[in-house]
Amino acid sequence: MPKKPSFDIPGEGFDPAKTSDLPGGRLNPSAFRRNALNGMDAVRVLAQKIKSGDIVALSKGITLIESNKDTDRPLSRELISLCLNEKETSVRIGISGSPGVGKSTFIESLGQALVEQNKKLAVLAIDPTSSLTGGSILGDKTRMINLSTHPNAYIRPTPAGKMLGGVARYTREAIILCEAAGYDVILIETVGVGQSETIVESMVDLFVLLILPGAGDDLQGIKRGVVEMADLLVVNKADGERINLANQAKASYTHALHLFPPKESGSLVEVCTCSSVESTGIIEIWQRVLKLLETHHSNGYFTKRRNAQLLHWFEETIRNNLFDLFNNNQVIKEEISMQENAILSHKLSPFDAAESLLKRFIEELRKN
Amino acid sequence: MPKKPSFDIPGEGFDPAKTSDLPGGRLNPSAFRRNALNGMDAVRVLAQKIKSGDIVALSKGITLIESNKDTDRPLSRELISLCLNEKETSVRIGISGSPGVGKSTFIESLGQALVEQNKKLAVLAIDPTSSLTGGSILGDKTRMINLSTHPNAYIRPTPAGKMLGGVARYTREAIILCEAAGYDVILIETVGVGQSETIVESMVDLFVLLILPGAGDDLQGIKRGVVEMADLLVVNKADGERINLANQAKASYTHALHLFPPKESGSLVEVCTCSSVESTGIIEIWQRVLKLLETHHSNGYFTKRRNAQLLHWFEETIRNNLFDLFNNNQVIKEEISMQENAILSHKLSPFDAAESLLKRFIEELRKN
Repeated sequence: MPKKPSFDIPGEGFDPAKTSDLPGGRLNPSAFRRNALNGMDAVRVLAQKIKSGDIVALSKGITLIESNKDTDRPLSRELISLCLNEKETSVRIGISGSPGVGKSTFIESLGQALVEQNKKLAVLAIDPTSSLTGGSILGDKTRMINLSTHPNAYIRPTPAGKMLGGVARYTREAIILCEAAGYDVILIETVGVGQSETIVESMVDLFVLLILPGAGDDLQGIKRGVVEMADLLVVNKADGERINLANQAKASYTHALHLFPPKESGSLVEVCTCSSVESTGIIEIWQRVLKLLETHHSNGYFTKRRNAQLLHWFEETIRNNLFDLFNNNQVIKEEISMQENAILSHKLSPFDAAESLLKRFIEELRKN
Repeated sequence: MPKKPSFDIPGEGFDPAKTSDLPGGRLNPSAFRRNALNGMDAVRVLAQKIKSGDIVALSKGITLIESNKDTDRPLSRELISLCLNEKETSVRIGISGSPGVGKSTFIESLGQALVEQNKKLAVLAIDPTSSLTGGSILGDKTRMINLSTHPNAYIRPTPAGKMLGGVARYTREAIILCEAAGYDVILIETVGVGQSETIVESMVDLFVLLILPGAGDDLQGIKRGVVEMADLLVVNKADGERINLANQAKASYTHALHLFPPKESGSLVEVCTCSSVESTGIIEIWQRVLKLLETHHSNGYFTKRRNAQLLHWFEETIRNNLFDLFNNNQVIKEEISMQENAILSHKLSPFDAAESLLKRFIEELRKN
């Protein structure tokens, strides 16, 4: 099977010299690497290509922002700044649900409907899975195989190794690049049982939770905190013999949702049923999504939520940059291993060691 | 039903004056509050009471470390330092699994077996759930009802509101307090589909993953990354008609685990079956756990893992303290809202605003 650009596997770092369709290709590669300004030039060209809708450039851009190399961070910051000034006309939708609920099939089905309406769709899949290949241990089928071949669809899985800590930053930045590339709809897929949802909620406009038909264990399985986040509940797999169960689940959830306090958005959380494999109910779900967005635009909640997300991102960036500043300080670099030894020999608690090193850091900053 | 101390609901902040069995009870409460030294005295008494096994003091201690009040942080740091010097003789075990796999029932069953052997058992339940009550939306039964009434058992749910970001710090500190209080076995319960596992793995000696019998969807449901973390797999609900399915699942997982690279611990990941409701296979699982711990002690992996965790904690503390330092700076307090306005009016990207504020922070530090 030929390698598809939309599944472009990110490498260890971004090497502008390897981007042969950028000006770097026409330069001496080693001179190119020595000169950071040239790296910045390449980033500017990359940003232009992304904005022109070049899917290969988009993949390269996301690879750059996912890079952990020190030398890549200024480049990726510049790329984000260049792409951020685009108008925010897209919608960002989080799709969540427990494993086995059929998220991939649902996204494939909804995605087909969208691209057939000439929407440009990007899917960012966040799945806290393997450090190797991701997916279930007995081997997942290739996911969203039809959607991924459509020219209007761009599918990007997050490499699992980047998950810890980085998921918020990488995904938020990937959203920016996708929007600059002209994607109208950004779907962010995640598993539905906890922390990753709260991270995703901090970057989407709407949060859709998929649930399974059948009124027993699955009702217990979905945790209240995740349901509370949802703007729309979808009972998936409402097909064949499960149609009755799906309708029961819809009734149970509709009833249960009455127990919840009203949402900040002012919207009622509705429950829909659909079958992703039979593609029934999918269009109706999208119409429901559009209606919710319309309401949120008119009552100001859409802007309020995006603003809160921008400020959250601001804080996260400060946190990360502070730690980088600390770690790159020469004296800290020299003294940190002494402190680590004191911790490991139980002479100091991690708390006390951190506090003494922090004092040292402040002294150093004041000296220079 | 009378309020049990082990389910003590944490309040908004720690008020030593309310701890009537501490010296504060004999002082004028308002004088007590005014004087930080007296707060420190109360913390010292609290630490002593925790070390003597006082369950009410332990609950108060955990409430203190969970407090977000600025004035409580120095007190909780002191409490941790006082409790940290105890010998590390306990074992810390993470228990994970998808919703519905029967984690609570398993912990209840294993816990009963342990307390009957005169072990002192603490259960810290981490569940990224509701900001209201936690649990499933149709209302969970009270969990671990038998275990929670046993004098050798201490059960502490993490308040869901404290989850975001804080879970690692609070739980790691709660482990320290439980160990100081003489608990031999600390079980840390979490849901089994992602990020919270990687956090828990950074603070336990062994990671036990529960799975369901039945070879279909559930095998897909457990993600490879979580399975890779597990030191022991337990097929739960191996009872009644499910015994055959459980044995099939055991065989499938045993086979699948051959595909994994060897673990750093040097141990093979084994698969057991058990029935939590019939209490079969539970003792065998505990013997397996003890055998694993023995191996890890003799090959040095136990110490290696605890050391790595101490250093991880060190880094986390530095990160948190750096951000506190930044946030409490007077100039930053004054200028941050200007930057926030610039972000919200799209004049600055969150990146650029963070960078300029950080420069300002460094200038300020240098001035003083």
